[in-house]
Amino acid sequence: MDPTERVPKDFGRLTVNDKTIRLAHGSGGRLTQELIEQVFRRYLGDSLPLDDSAVLDFPPGRLAFTTDAHVVDPIFFPGGDIGRLAVCGTVNDLAAQAARPLYLSAAFVLEEGFSVSDLERVVRSMRQAADEAGVRVVTGDTKVVPRGKGDRVYVTTSGVGVVAPDRRVSGANAQPGDVVLISGTVGDHGMAVISVRSGISFETDLVSDVAPLNGLVEALFQAGVQVHALRDPTRGGVATTLNEIARQSGVAIEVDEASVPLRPEVIGACELLGFDPLYVANEGKMLVFVPAEDAERALQALRAHPLGRQAAAIGRVLDEPPGRVYLKTQIGGRRILDMQSGEQLPRIC
Amino acid sequence: MDPTERVPKDFGRLTVNDKTIRLAHGSGGRLTQELIEQVFRRYLGDSLPLDDSAVLDFPPGRLAFTTDAHVVDPIFFPGGDIGRLAVCGTVNDLAAQAARPLYLSAAFVLEEGFSVSDLERVVRSMRQAADEAGVRVVTGDTKVVPRGKGDRVYVTTSGVGVVAPDRRVSGANAQPGDVVLISGTVGDHGMAVISVRSGISFETDLVSDVAPLNGLVEALFQAGVQVHALRDPTRGGVATTLNEIARQSGVAIEVDEASVPLRPEVIGACELLGFDPLYVANEGKMLVFVPAEDAERALQALRAHPLGRQAAAIGRVLDEPPGRVYLKTQIGGRRILDMQSGEQLPRIC
Repeated sequence: MDPTERVPKDFGRLTVNDKTIRLAHGSGGRLTQELIEQVFRRYLGDSLPLDDSAVLDFPPGRLAFTTDAHVVDPIFFPGGDIGRLAVCGTVNDLAAQAARPLYLSAAFVLEEGFSVSDLERVVRSMRQAADEAGVRVVTGDTKVVPRGKGDRVYVTTSGVGVVAPDRRVSGANAQPGDVVLISGTVGDHGMAVISVRSGISFETDLVSDVAPLNGLVEALFQAGVQVHALRDPTRGGVATTLNEIARQSGVAIEVDEASVPLRPEVIGACELLGFDPLYVANEGKMLVFVPAEDAERALQALRAHPLGRQAAAIGRVLDEPPGRVYLKTQIGGRRILDMQSGEQLPRIC
Repeated sequence: MDPTERVPKDFGRLTVNDKTIRLAHGSGGRLTQELIEQVFRRYLGDSLPLDDSAVLDFPPGRLAFTTDAHVVDPIFFPGGDIGRLAVCGTVNDLAAQAARPLYLSAAFVLEEGFSVSDLERVVRSMRQAADEAGVRVVTGDTKVVPRGKGDRVYVTTSGVGVVAPDRRVSGANAQPGDVVLISGTVGDHGMAVISVRSGISFETDLVSDVAPLNGLVEALFQAGVQVHALRDPTRGGVATTLNEIARQSGVAIEVDEASVPLRPEVIGACELLGFDPLYVANEGKMLVFVPAEDAERALQALRAHPLGRQAAAIGRVLDEPPGRVYLKTQIGGRRILDMQSGEQLPRIC
């Protein structure tokens, strides 16, 4: 079923009496109730509790718990928006622990003067992404800050999932000999956002990859792949994420630059604007560490999924020096690929 | 044990190389790692995962899940700060569902230029409040926004708790004949915050009541009280919260104004600044609905707890008209006590 069919079709009509957010919408009184009823419950579902907490069934297994604040600028960008980003980011952090995502919370900090119809668009997009991922937004909160103390909308999502007992996946579990896979092209999200900010979006086809990856991860386990580590390379990109895993696991990692999948338009935009795609954020990609003997099966499982068609093996895990990441360059050299040290792309997620 | 003893004693020393937050602290790269290691993990504990989610044990029972964004201004106020507020607010939302709070997440939106030592003070206070409540902050996130796009620090906390199967508490479960109890004095938090903003704090002893109420709620159950509904009257105060419960439960509620516990300094500040204490936020008080036959036992259980010494019966539940709240005034009249309709106190929590 097309997930958009599960969203009310009359989106776009203004439902709250005001066209813009006022401080009183955050007061906890009548206008807050109106906003909850006519925007949040309308799009996220009547099951959103009127109590201060949701009370929910939890299946047997360990509990995975995560949170992310989202401050992306602009809030709408090619391929997504802050609402889709918030839901997918949280779903993917759960999926990276091999958890089955179950429930999300959403807390909004709205700036006085923010457009109610833009808020509706964001909340509707959250519902659509949640439907794609098979999760529910079950509880939320809204605060309003005066003009100049925020920027339209910040969304913090938290998520709860269940981890099956036989799944032991951790960033500390990468092992020498493992093959490093990426589920598709690199840098799409970051370059889509930065292209809007830099004004070049009109001349490119850059589109964010923002998507929920729990189905893709599930496909790996269904294929019987022995997964050692998973992580979605968001802020800081593939290079920073690999450095984190190398440190946590006490291993070295070597990346083969030529094998990293890249869209031509991302290469072009990176050259134009001076970015290294290995440091640019992704929001719909997963790094996967598997034993060498499982690498081919894992690649096949990823490529058979709509979100993994361009999956590739991009590197391997070495036993030393611990915490070090190397890049084998296209021209045959080998250099250290360090963690990002400064601010490459502020407010990318 | 004094909960402060569980917090490292060398608080106050600057540990991060910068004295103020820079955009790069939110980049996901080296400076983000430094902030995580030297502030968040330092105060919240080394158990804070380096993975994107925490994976945790969950005991048998239903799962309670809640979230709150905190934007209080000022971030430090008499009796507390935004960190203590965030932890207690989330703990209390879980306690209001009769859940035992287990785990918290914390997501920070920091404004460029925010003082690192103030951030340390906030995070240390979160740890102290978490220790008081017996919960752990197990996962977090940090974003940085440019100057003028935030206000020092916003903290969104989410919480997970477990609900014992025999506990059925809901805002929809208040029943005609129930007695309404409040666990102590009303309006303390809101007037403490507003006194700072209005510049009268130096001449009053107004102190926020911000505290974790899970122990107080547990005392009710331990005493064998049949609890129908619980809710902490935060934004919008006692009046707004009672209106919510009257609507959810389809009952009327009558409040006896003379029996509402109030500190003299809160009465004075409300008169001076033109507030009605029944609409002023509390952060360490619980409204409790119990059958009349359990009211005395419940009051005794509350008063035996350090956070409930001034507990009082303030009203009763009537069967109609549904959704209506009345106030029996001190001079013997009876009027409708409506939900707050505008913004009385912006950024109070």
